[in-house]
This record gives sequence, structure tokens and C-alpha cells, in this order.
Amino acid sequence: MKLAISGKGGVGKTTIASALINIIARNEGTVYAIDADPDACLASSIGIPDEEAASLKPVVEMRDAIRNKTGNGAFYNLNPKLDDFIDDYSYKLGNIRFFRMGDPKKGGSECYCRENTFLNALISSLLLDQNDTVIMDMGAGIEHLSRGTARGVDMMLVVVEPGRNSINTAKQVERMAKDLGIPKVGIIANKIRSVGEKQFIAKNFQDDLILGYIKFSEAIWANAMEPSQAVELDKDLLVEMEKVCRKILREVGGKSN
Amino acid sequence: MKLAISGKGGVGKTTIASALINIIARNEGTVYAIDADPDACLASSIGIPDEEAASLKPVVEMRDAIRNKTGNGAFYNLNPKLDDFIDDYSYKLGNIRFFRMGDPKKGGSECYCRENTFLNALISSLLLDQNDTVIMDMGAGIEHLSRGTARGVDMMLVVVEPGRNSINTAKQVERMAKDLGIPKVGIIANKIRSVGEKQFIAKNFQDDLILGYIKFSEAIWANAMEPSQAVELDKDLLVEMEKVCRKILREVGGKSN
Repeated sequence: MKLAISGKGGVGKTTIASALINIIARNEGTVYAIDADPDACLASSIGIPDEEAASLKPVVEMRDAIRNKTGNGAFYNLNPKLDDFIDDYSYKLGNIRFFRMGDPKKGGSECYCRENTFLNALISSLLLDQNDTVIMDMGAGIEHLSRGTARGVDMMLVVVEPGRNSINTAKQVERMAKDLGIPKVGIIANKIRSVGEKQFIAKNFQDDLILGYIKFSEAIWANAMEPSQAVELDKDLLVEMEKVCRKILREVGGKSN
Repeated sequence: MKLAISGKGGVGKTTIASALINIIARNEGTVYAIDADPDACLASSIGIPDEEAASLKPVVEMRDAIRNKTGNGAFYNLNPKLDDFIDDYSYKLGNIRFFRMGDPKKGGSECYCRENTFLNALISSLLLDQNDTVIMDMGAGIEHLSRGTARGVDMMLVVVEPGRNSINTAKQVERMAKDLGIPKVGIIANKIRSVGEKQFIAKNFQDDLILGYIKFSEAIWANAMEPSQAVELDKDLLVEMEKVCRKILREVGGKSN
């Protein structure tokens, strides 16, 4: 199963991603967790120290390593024998294999097109074992969709909060995911503080699109100032996300379960 | 005076931008307000109806129009006679001239490099009248900095909230703004709910970098579900932002005041 998590900036993509990564790693099997945001913060959310994440070789460098090995850079020739590369480019934490997209760049040096192009190729052609999952935490907004970075996923998850702007973004994501041929889209409503807020989101989407409603968490807000976010400790979030996770598994079950 | 507003997704860039645009338009003169985020939402924040903003010709198309007029696309040959173009590509609202970066794209069609390159060229070479201001609301995160979109501004404003991630982003922005040769950087602390949160931000930056602390606003949160955000009605925000604005004018005063 291959999933991408998107949405407007600040809606809680990384929090939702790390909960999902933890739940699936605990119950299903290996999770390849990819931080696809140049403004990266997934590592610390799943409990990997910042220094460890920063010293990890970025995925984009895999391209040259594969080119050296295969002569043409076409890593699908190598697939599924990517194991050596995976060891080399990922940080292992239990069942989680964490990857980061690219290095920080100098101001004015270049865009992240190269990183996005490689991630697209990697995700599209990666052959997964039964019970293995890829979860990509995408950059804020919609440019990764115009680039097609997550073209190869089975389902695009879109996180929204009770606000017009994040809902407008979600509708753009839905449209662009369709352009990319992504088979499924699911909405996760986050930071809900009242029935009114829940209804506001509900009236903006078809019922069957919404995978769950996550309550606003004071604990997560307070935790954001701590050295490590440790969202795996937020019980309410995990309970809700376990339900969301079961729905996702049912939705894409035809392919991987 | 040319300003850009950046920061991690969700910190409140657009809210801060629209307050600043309103204050400067009221007190100083013409404000060229540019939404430089592909996931655009500045227009409705400053009171421009979504349909009007959507029907506006995007700035990136100005390139071809200028090429047709000058023969080489070098609009600095035309400058400061950009007035016709400005009428053609902006939406006028009192002293505000609103521009949007580009059109929504099809999923998988292309990146926004072309739009960013043109904005960079436009901002760098635009000659402003005394008392005129450019305010660019940048996309979430750091890719606009690696691209150098806002290279020509006098000051890079970075919005942070009381959380480790937005502070890490701000430090990256600070570093990359220096790479770009942007003369000044200022931090605006947003969504502050307690003394502890204020101290958390204060201890992460040099005193003279921080331009102000904006309280968390229930009104803005609630307003986010309304058809138009109308942040100009939030009194507390405006009072705080007026102080921030005076500091900005002093900081870049040598150039424009």
C-alpha cells in the first residue's frame, strides 16, 4: 500500500502522518516513511533525533548510486533488489524505515524539482512486499501535485482543519489527484473543537470521502515546544487514527490486503 | 520598500500579510500586494472576492506581454513605465494593487519555477515611487528561498508560532535570506496564548530580531469558516501590527522613509 499525505500548510499533515506510520508499523509490517517536504519535520515527530535525521543520506543521491550500479539510473531494473540501497539511505526505527528527500540548500541555488522527479520515479516503480506500506508526508500546498510527485500512490490523504482555506486546498488536491490518476482520495478532518466545526467540514465534502474527525489536542499544541514531539503518546489521536487506518486499509484493500 | 512574508505552513503568514497591507495602504501610499503562493489565499484575506481574484490575469503572463512590447522581455527597459501593465494585471482596492502569481495547474503538468523566476526578476528591478510598498506573501516553507524568488526585497519577515518546527523553519529562512543578500530579517511571533509561549520564542532569537508578539485570536479562528476572512476587523491584531509596522519602517527607513 502506498499513501501520500497532503493539505494546506499548518493543518497537521506531519502529526497525522506520524500517527499513521506508528499504527501501521505496529500492526501491519514495514513502513517506508518518506519526508517529501523540503521544510522537513517528520523525523522528530516519529522519534528520530534531529542530528540522526540530518546526517542521513538524502534519497535524491540514490539516483547517482543506482546509475553507477546499473549503468543507466533505471532503478526499476534493480527492483526488488533495492535492499542494499534501502539500508544505506534509511534510518531504521523498529518497523519504520525513514527517508528524507534532500539536503537543505543555499538560498538562491536551485528548486527542488530534481528531488520531486526522483521521488515520483521511486514511488511509482517500487515493488512492495505484501504488508509493506509507503507513507509520504508531502510539502504544504499544491505544487507537489502540479509536479506529480505522488503519482504512484494508491491513495491521497488530505488533511483539513475547520477553515475555508484548507478546504479550498483540499478541493484542489482532489482535482489534481484525479489528473494524476490516483485511484482514491480521503479527507481527514483535524483540530476539531466543536460540533459546528465538524458540521462545517462535513457539508463541504461527500460523506464517503471523510475518513475521520480528529479533535483539537491541547497536548499536541503544548508538545510542539518540547525537544521531541512524541505524538505517539497522544492517546486520543491514536484511537481516532486507528479507526481512520482501518478505513484506509478497507479502501485500498483490493490492492494490498 | 519591498517586503516578503515567509514561514512554516500554518503560522499565519497570510493573516499577517493582509494586516500589514491594510495598515500601509491606509497610512503610507500604494501597496503592491503579491500572492506568491501557488496555494493562494491572500485575495480573500484582503477583501477581494474569490471570483474576481480567479479572473485576474496572473503576473507570469506579463512576461510575454512585455516581450511583445519591448522585443526581448526585459521589462527593466520599460520601467518605470509599467503603469499600463499594472492596470492590466492587478485588482485595485483603494490603495491596494493585488497581483496573483499564476493559474491553478493540472496535476502532473509542471512546477512553479517559471512563476518564481519571473517574480524574482520583477521584484528585483521594479522601481518604486517614494511611499510605495511591495508586500509579497510567500509560499509555505523554504523552497521559495532556495529558488531566490524574493531576492530583491529590503526585508524578509518570518512569522513563527510557539512550536519547535516553525522556529527551525525561521532559522533556515534567516540563513537563506543571508545567502540571498537580503539586508534585513525580522521575526513576527504569532498565536501567542501565554507568557510561557512568548518566552519560548524570545529565547530562540536575538532580541532585536523580534518585531512583535501577536496574541492568538479566537475571532480569526472563527472567521476562518466565514466566506470572507475580513481580518481588517480584528482590532487586537491591527493594534499589534501597527507597532510592528512602525518598527519595519524604521528598520528599512534608510531606503524609503
